[in-house]
Amino acid sequence: MPDREAVIDLRSDTVTKPCAGMLAAMAGARVGDDQYGEDIETNLLQDEVAQLLGKERALWLPSGTMANQVALKTATQPGDDVIVAMQSHAVWHETGGSAANAGVQFSEIGGQGWFGVDAFDAAIKPKNHHIFPPTTMVQVEQTHNRCGGTLCPPEVAQEICQLAKERNIFSYMDGARLWNAAVASGRTVADLAAPFDAVMVSFSKGLGAPGGSMLVGDNEFIERAVRFRRMFGGAMRQTGYYAATARFALSQNMARLTDDHANAKALAAHLAECPQLTLNPNGVQTNIVVFELKTDAMRAGDLVRAAKAHDVLINALGRNTVRLVTHKDVSRADCDHAADQIIKILSHQPIPNAA
Amino acid sequence: MPDREAVIDLRSDTVTKPCAGMLAAMAGARVGDDQYGEDIETNLLQDEVAQLLGKERALWLPSGTMANQVALKTATQPGDDVIVAMQSHAVWHETGGSAANAGVQFSEIGGQGWFGVDAFDAAIKPKNHHIFPPTTMVQVEQTHNRCGGTLCPPEVAQEICQLAKERNIFSYMDGARLWNAAVASGRTVADLAAPFDAVMVSFSKGLGAPGGSMLVGDNEFIERAVRFRRMFGGAMRQTGYYAATARFALSQNMARLTDDHANAKALAAHLAECPQLTLNPNGVQTNIVVFELKTDAMRAGDLVRAAKAHDVLINALGRNTVRLVTHKDVSRADCDHAADQIIKILSHQPIPNAA
Amino acid sequence: MPDREAVIDLRSDTVTKPCAGMLAAMAGARVGDDQYGEDIETNLLQDEVAQLLGKERALWLPSGTMANQVALKTATQPGDDVIVAMQSHAVWHETGGSAANAGVQFSEIGGQGWFGVDAFDAAIKPKNHHIFPPTTMVQVEQTHNRCGGTLCPPEVAQEICQLAKERNIFSYMDGARLWNAAVASGRTVADLAAPFDAVMVSFSKGLGAPGGSMLVGDNEFIERAVRFRRMFGGAMRQTGYYAATARFALSQNMARLTDDHANAKALAAHLAECPQLTLNPNGVQTNIVVFELKTDAMRAGDLVRAAKAHDVLINALGRNTVRLVTHKDVSRADCDHAADQIIKILSHQPIPNAA
Amino acid sequence: MPDREAVIDLRSDTVTKPCAGMLAAMAGARVGDDQYGEDIETNLLQDEVAQLLGKERALWLPSGTMANQVALKTATQPGDDVIVAMQSHAVWHETGGSAANAGVQFSEIGGQGWFGVDAFDAAIKPKNHHIFPPTTMVQVEQTHNRCGGTLCPPEVAQEICQLAKERNIFSYMDGARLWNAAVASGRTVADLAAPFDAVMVSFSKGLGAPGGSMLVGDNEFIERAVRFRRMFGGAMRQTGYYAATARFALSQNMARLTDDHANAKALAAHLAECPQLTLNPNGVQTNIVVFELKTDAMRAGDLVRAAKAHDVLINALGRNTVRLVTHKDVSRADCDHAADQIIKILSHQPIPNAA
Repeated sequence: MPDREAVIDLRSDTVTKPCAGMLAAMAGARVGDDQYGEDIETNLLQDEVAQLLGKERALWLPSGTMANQVALKTATQPGDDVIVAMQSHAVWHETGGSAANAGVQFSEIGGQGWFGVDAFDAAIKPKNHHIFPPTTMVQVEQTHNRCGGTLCPPEVAQEICQLAKERNIFSYMDGARLWNAAVASGRTVADLAAPFDAVMVSFSKGLGAPGGSMLVGDNEFIERAVRFRRMFGGAMRQTGYYAATARFALSQNMARLTDDHANAKALAAHLAECPQLTLNPNGVQTNIVVFELKTDAMRAGDLVRAAKAHDVLINALGRNTVRLVTHKDVSRADCDHAADQIIKILSHQPIPNAA
Repeated sequence: MPDREAVIDLRSDTVTKPCAGMLAAMAGARVGDDQYGEDIETNLLQDEVAQLLGKERALWLPSGTMANQVALKTATQPGDDVIVAMQSHAVWHETGGSAANAGVQFSEIGGQGWFGVDAFDAAIKPKNHHIFPPTTMVQVEQTHNRCGGTLCPPEVAQEICQLAKERNIFSYMDGARLWNAAVASGRTVADLAAPFDAVMVSFSKGLGAPGGSMLVGDNEFIERAVRFRRMFGGAMRQTGYYAATARFALSQNMARLTDDHANAKALAAHLAECPQLTLNPNGVQTNIVVFELKTDAMRAGDLVRAAKAHDVLINALGRNTVRLVTHKDVSRADCDHAADQIIKILSHQPIPNAA
Repeated sequence: MPDREAVIDLRSDTVTKPCAGMLAAMAGARVGDDQYGEDIETNLLQDEVAQLLGKERALWLPSGTMANQVALKTATQPGDDVIVAMQSHAVWHETGGSAANAGVQFSEIGGQGWFGVDAFDAAIKPKNHHIFPPTTMVQVEQTHNRCGGTLCPPEVAQEICQLAKERNIFSYMDGARLWNAAVASGRTVADLAAPFDAVMVSFSKGLGAPGGSMLVGDNEFIERAVRFRRMFGGAMRQTGYYAATARFALSQNMARLTDDHANAKALAAHLAECPQLTLNPNGVQTNIVVFELKTDAMRAGDLVRAAKAHDVLINALGRNTVRLVTHKDVSRADCDHAADQIIKILSHQPIPNAA
Repeated sequence: MPDREAVIDLRSDTVTKPCAGMLAAMAGARVGDDQYGEDIETNLLQDEVAQLLGKERALWLPSGTMANQVALKTATQPGDDVIVAMQSHAVWHETGGSAANAGVQFSEIGGQGWFGVDAFDAAIKPKNHHIFPPTTMVQVEQTHNRCGGTLCPPEVAQEICQLAKERNIFSYMDGARLWNAAVASGRTVADLAAPFDAVMVSFSKGLGAPGGSMLVGDNEFIERAVRFRRMFGGAMRQTGYYAATARFALSQNMARLTDDHANAKALAAHLAECPQLTLNPNGVQTNIVVFELKTDAMRAGDLVRAAKAHDVLINALGRNTVRLVTHKDVSRADCDHAADQIIKILSHQPIPNAA
């Protein structure tokens, strides 16, 4: 990797590093063995997050992927059908865990990161479960990562959860970036979480903590989830060091997400000027920018490598699809510089191999 | 159920009953314990079907669903991604078994019962399996049941299997109705099976045997499949009684599938006259007719019930979708009569409750 | 295989072939598509077996292994603990299906084919399921195959089921040879089945039908089992041909099991004279004889091969363990001859290679 | 929980809290996103542990349970048979994960925490995998937790691994307390790890780090394990804070394990004087003391509660079985005081309810 000082890292909002305040919070953490329920910071964080989201109980987990996997184990049975938006994290980025761990199959619907209640209704499998897999869960990924940090409109989420309740389908929000959704929509996280039976939130994305996620739901759901956390190996010991950073992040890093969103919009506006790519800057709602390379442009993988050689780190989502994510460790100037570099690379093909 | 004599059963080609010749074949079967590999009829059938499809070895299984499930267990690993046509039997009609038994997830592509090689290429998950589920199998359902008995064009299947081989992806044909595909396309079953690593065929659909399916592939694949057959409980004892009916069916009932196809086309042409439904009779390629009820017509479930009251048995595939299947136990006259009844019911809503 | 006429096959009671009467019953079967619940013979058999065992409902399945696997899927959850006797069929002969299909682990207790209520009590895992796998099923294999057709004393089974009920543990009998247990104990099958929540019976062992088993339990259990039967691929079409043979077997072949038991005892008494093996003839309770070869005798696999060369077929259960099973297709004279051959082979080592 | 100052916590060696030096190491950790392989401390720790154990590569995991589960996923297939010592952690303390996650079944052998090579040989399932589950892994738990911290003699482990290699069986050591085994046996950890294909070690037991475990093996094994770590949700972000504590623990807390062992022996000698319990102090090999309460004494659960009321925390392993674990946060004086309290409680039944 090139010298870190010089590098602008737009690969993900997971690459941030704690500030001095967060490190101080970590050092002062009051810990205990979380498998005995005795980690003080973790218990405080769980209570705070449950209250923040307006649910009965919260459970710390090492990662958002584990939160998603535990939620599936807790609320579904092997052979069930789970309705998700196309390109969902659970389908793409958990290396097939949902089928391997929970034995469920996905029905992927809706092209823009979310789907309407009619599409949901139409996708529910018929009731004869001697033949058809029963649809028992619907997921909303809020915001939707691979579709560019898009927001499922709160009123749509509300309708989906309402229909889910009528059909005895568990409603689940993969809210790894729920914080961004709240800031972008002007709603509280409690408001966005309210219609769902259970919600996952993550501290290691935009909030900038070094790790940890949480499942939030009613007491019975969480009580069962505790078992599945251990089954996957997610029950740890003195987790309070992570919990303390999450508590710091919740109190200090929420408001500043507006900066990340503004930076992402600026970055998108800048990049949209480049004729070698397709990008609608008005579509950028939060801290993620996704664009398509035109067919006569270079491939995404090649652009990633070329940008890295210029100390700009970005990610390929597909052969022609590129993702950039803003976060607390990149400034507006960083975004401007990164956009300049990318446009330069795309404009001057073939580029000299700078590596 | 109404008196069987009077009933025209178009629900499926699985409802047929053996003729006297088939029963005689059954009575004369030379049997043994198939778990010791000593059932003579089963061994003969396995050899014949392997030869017929041009593969090394074949294995008897109690049902097409088990053949599909065993194929997945044999050729994939939990967490793998399997590319199938939308509305596939494995996704819809096996009550979620694929994820529950083999731990795989499906990528559903292509709207008309099959997909082209470009769509297949685009659907293959990226190579980084620390993140993405690896795509390890592609399936072609030949003919495609829920999409109306449609044929995947043989040259498309060839291209798909070619790309699969290049990408180290196992190619599998769910050929429950491969016999119909062969008759409709004028190809041999060996020709249609040739590009695939493994193929499933069924004797209890159009061929009219009372049960049994087969997996066909190379020796190593089948050797492993034997284990998974037992793991699911599909290893039986004196299976020769079923095998004998399948041998009879292969020799006697193949050619007559053309009648079923002609009957299906006639049935479709007749039904297409009805303004309450949407049906393109030119789309009927084999023995399955699927139509959509218009939104102001009755619901599919209501039509099924009304038709049953008039001794015509049909199936609802969805709220507005109806399926009819021709087979050896329905004649052209039966089809005409059934179409008349259905049109009459749809034309005279609300119908009197004849039940 | 040697010429069948001359062969005495004591490998298993699954190798029998139907008599003329059974074949006539098969030919006269009234069938239908069992996936629509319309197979008349199967429905009759299900009703008869449910009544015979004093349970609400019965379900036809292709094999005893599938019945065991479906029972596990129906009554347990992945991660559960299931208590069984050591050397159980489910642990040894289902190629690991129980863990692969249902995700359960076994606790094996009791050395003689069954266990007492105190051993059961001690084996139940502690209640804290955030740590320990919950014990949710106890199985009794009646009679126990690998331990030599032994009977779990009915009063012990009664105590086990009573404790199971108190602890909210599902009690299941693998009654593949329940018929033999009833004959040997002088109890009715209903009496032996009464304490259990669900029971499996098989028609293809001592009863001599060519295939088929049944799960028997209450309506809710069977309703759920129907789904899992399909999930494994055990839902077939015109199953009435097998059901008719089972109905014949139930009415004609139950009483004669006493002959098999007498033959097994005679066989054991005869073999026990041989100084190269260890066998307590008083331990033979039903139709299975298991003996141990002494360490200075030949290995079990070698004995099996040598006996086969003399047209006597037997099975090795382990390196020094041999099993013989009597059934309707072997006579007392066959048993005498087989014992003579085995003793001769063991006495005259090294034997000339007769093959 | 009673006031921590006054409490002597012998429940487990997982309850320790970092010293100032360890906290300083944490604060100085150089971190990065471990999912991109960029966490410096984690990479250093992985390299150090691989070298320490003499293997090619090591992988950080959130817990020992996850290490065990990932090892099973990596080295076995669903339906496989895994041989373990009775009372193994994987069987008892991972809430059924092994069967639920990896689909394997256990064969439990050996009563004292380990088993000899002959018992292992006898437990390997026969080769016919169309019937029997294939035995593909053997585990040694070193030291064995529930059996009292017992050591599998290194020469026995060597023989087991040798036979495993001959039979193509993967040899795996659950070395959560390998550090204690090394200290107790006077061998290096590399020496103890050498015969095994893969080894798990834990930093949160006797070494006193707040969390984290590692899988160690060859490159191919670890490369595959990376995927399964993510599948379970164990791929985290800035793990270096934990890795730094583990690096500190390895350099500072290894040697002092001899104190824990001496304390455990003293504790056992003291407790063995109590006539209400059975305990052989010579059997204590490392830092775990397990004793049995005599049948006329109080139940283990009652003793746990009574001791807690006297500020001594211990654990019940069963109705009559009690476990105490020494570690860096309990002194010899603490052990003496705890033994006094326990003896007093057991001697003066019924005790006054001190709570």
